[in-house]
Amino acid sequence: MEQRISLVTLGVADLSRSRTFYEQLGWLGHEVEGTVFFQAGGQAVVLWDRGKLAADAGIDDDDETGFGGITLAHNVRSREDVDEVVGSAELAGARVTKAPGVTFYGGYAGCFADPDGHLWEIAYNADFALSVDGTLTLPFFDPET
Amino acid sequence: MEQRISLVTLGVADLSRSRTFYEQLGWLGHEVEGTVFFQAGGQAVVLWDRGKLAADAGIDDDDETGFGGITLAHNVRSREDVDEVVGSAELAGARVTKAPGVTFYGGYAGCFADPDGHLWEIAYNADFALSVDGTLTLPFFDPET
Repeated sequence: MEQRISLVTLGVADLSRSRTFYEQLGWLGHEVEGTVFFQAGGQAVVLWDRGKLAADAGIDDDDETGFGGITLAHNVRSREDVDEVVGSAELAGARVTKAPGVTFYGGYAGCFADPDGHLWEIAYNADFALSVDGTLTLPFFDPET
Repeated sequence: MEQRISLVTLGVADLSRSRTFYEQLGWLGHEVEGTVFFQAGGQAVVLWDRGKLAADAGIDDDDETGFGGITLAHNVRSREDVDEVVGSAELAGARVTKAPGVTFYGGYAGCFADPDGHLWEIAYNADFALSVDGTLTLPFFDPET
């Protein structure tokens, strides 16, 4: 597993309220089907419905692990890389909350909880370009700006 | 507020256990006074005692906001920038959980909770270099590697 985070997804109760909040701080977001994406340096910050975020990671919002409403995503370059990283995490003692499989957006991902329950999604998404150094660039923002 | 995260700090129950977990995944950490830092692309991932993390952000661990054990940090270039960003967040509706002030490491920082309680620390730390594009480089890792 390379030493980087690709996306930080914040679970929110009211997408419009949260988007307005970050835009008032000067951020520029782009909404795609109920999800707001912000290009944030070499990674992305994402706002998504909290219940959907928990379900997508394979956990209950009131799970005993204490869901904090945040998922850290680490994007990789192939489906095989997803399987390999999730397998390594399991060997290292992680609890796999969602076995690797095809995602609703046509990608491939699996999720695990680290020893304190912090959630990681390991994902392959052909639409999100990864540079050689692992920097992630969202498709709907001009990388030159 | 520039559109980026500088550090993601994960609150942990057992620093050694958590460091071992991430090192088993292939990450290389550096411990400084009970805190483990990982250079993660243009940002840093940090492991720190969960109770200290909550206290440092000015909240109770069992606070009604539902502390998830993660703080997102946005580092800036001066004390004045800290005041300005925290002030902007308050105007945008954030709850300021820790007013800007001098930190235990000699920096200057303030914290706020976004509309869903996600914690942000806005910090000035002269020891953590920020490039023009906002990339953060930890002092104890060779930036060339």
